[in-house]
Amino acid sequence: MKLRVLTIVGVGLLGGSIGLAARRRGIVDCVRGLGRSRESLDEAKALGAIDEVHLDPTTAIPGSDLVVVCTPVDLIAETVLQHAAVATPGTIFTDVGSTKKRIVDDLEGKLPPGIVFVGSHPLAGSEKRGVRYADADLFVGRMTVVTMSQKNFERPVPDAVGMDFVVDFWQAIGSTCRFMLAEYHDKGVATTSHLPHLIASTLACVVPMWAQCLVATGYRDTTRIAAGDPGLWTAIFEQNRDELLNALDRFDAQLGLFRQAIEKGDHSALHAMLAEAKKNRDAIDS
Amino acid sequence: MKLRVLTIVGVGLLGGSIGLAARRRGIVDCVRGLGRSRESLDEAKALGAIDEVHLDPTTAIPGSDLVVVCTPVDLIAETVLQHAAVATPGTIFTDVGSTKKRIVDDLEGKLPPGIVFVGSHPLAGSEKRGVRYADADLFVGRMTVVTMSQKNFERPVPDAVGMDFVVDFWQAIGSTCRFMLAEYHDKGVATTSHLPHLIASTLACVVPMWAQCLVATGYRDTTRIAAGDPGLWTAIFEQNRDELLNALDRFDAQLGLFRQAIEKGDHSALHAMLAEAKKNRDAIDS
Repeated sequence: MKLRVLTIVGVGLLGGSIGLAARRRGIVDCVRGLGRSRESLDEAKALGAIDEVHLDPTTAIPGSDLVVVCTPVDLIAETVLQHAAVATPGTIFTDVGSTKKRIVDDLEGKLPPGIVFVGSHPLAGSEKRGVRYADADLFVGRMTVVTMSQKNFERPVPDAVGMDFVVDFWQAIGSTCRFMLAEYHDKGVATTSHLPHLIASTLACVVPMWAQCLVATGYRDTTRIAAGDPGLWTAIFEQNRDELLNALDRFDAQLGLFRQAIEKGDHSALHAMLAEAKKNRDAIDS
Repeated sequence: MKLRVLTIVGVGLLGGSIGLAARRRGIVDCVRGLGRSRESLDEAKALGAIDEVHLDPTTAIPGSDLVVVCTPVDLIAETVLQHAAVATPGTIFTDVGSTKKRIVDDLEGKLPPGIVFVGSHPLAGSEKRGVRYADADLFVGRMTVVTMSQKNFERPVPDAVGMDFVVDFWQAIGSTCRFMLAEYHDKGVATTSHLPHLIASTLACVVPMWAQCLVATGYRDTTRIAAGDPGLWTAIFEQNRDELLNALDRFDAQLGLFRQAIEKGDHSALHAMLAEAKKNRDAIDS
């Protein structure tokens, strides 16, 4: 694959990694970085993540083959709409948001003719923020979910072309890809990503100061993601509220069973649940 | 420090690491391994973790300077009592158990004259089991809690000597040490270790099969310890039942606050709690 112009909106850890990855692999002639802070864009340019610094969408967007929106999830839909208005027909938009259904819903039927949005969620990232943590190999060996809506099925052209194009792009920077309906994506990540974040944050809130000296690797690993940015995660929880609450219901029910077994001293029930947890966890790495 | 004879009861990951660490650092003339499986003790000897294979306490225990009991927590007290009966007066016993109060209580007033038990808990380990994962540097830079009971204070000799001896031993194999009353140790690790294990296991139980493809590093880290041995952890939960339930109460209360904020769409409360979690988590690594 070869692009002429790739525009990255929001050049932080993820956006910067996309720029670095695309430039190092020689799949793009020019990477434009669009953002609000000249300082941070200058840093991105100095690090080799972008070729051009843009503060104005009317210079950054026109002529782009692909625009990747890397803003917080609650700003993605409005950013796409705003920038699509000045885009050259044929431009494909995608994003890196951790939620998908609400974004797809918010954009449905609102894009100008010739402009396609395909939702992406690369399962890669870090609790760190900022372009200085960008990594050209962040997506290597990771999976990117490329989402479709039911409407995408009913309207195969040009959306299908856009989806293939977006898949080719992620693959060109090292990721594997999987198609998924936006609502199934959100249901799934509610359990595999948003619930773990909520639980890690809860754990991080309940350790008394005097006990911090007893913290070891188990606690560190279990709570690592709680160091993520509170603003980004508040927005993610809000965007995927209903599915997160469903996942939390399942978690609470299971935790209730554990509590019951511990309270009652039910050795075999406790052992059986810990064995099931181990089997599930082992399956993930096998 | 220099020991003539160190006896390790139960030569798995932890016991094997103690043997390797002591032999490599030249602080012991002879390491005896005592266990029930000749095959596993032969493996420990082949790996350099022990010098002698023992299946019989009456040959393994007499003449030992230090006996380190590395059995599952529910067997530690009875193992110490059984082996103390054949020990040479002056022998010091310690352990590596994740809980302390019940063990100390079970041994109180029951040891033969001249035999001292000092509880230890090295905050090091792995979800792996077996001497083949033993590591001579497992304790380097880690902390070992050396526990005292109120009675230890009232009876400074010979217990104080035993405690110094045990501290010297852990330091000689690379660990730092901290004294703590057994009940405070158990209160603390209920929150920093046992609760995270329970929570990780709960999370590992609630991911549907179809969503496993969406698992990324966050989930992997959060649930890693759920791969621990179910038998060992059932025993730990049972030994520290009351403190674990107290920690679980605090966790449930905090999770309830998160749920409320998400249900109500209370942006600022949610943001504030995630920010508190981040602050606490950042403090641990600073």
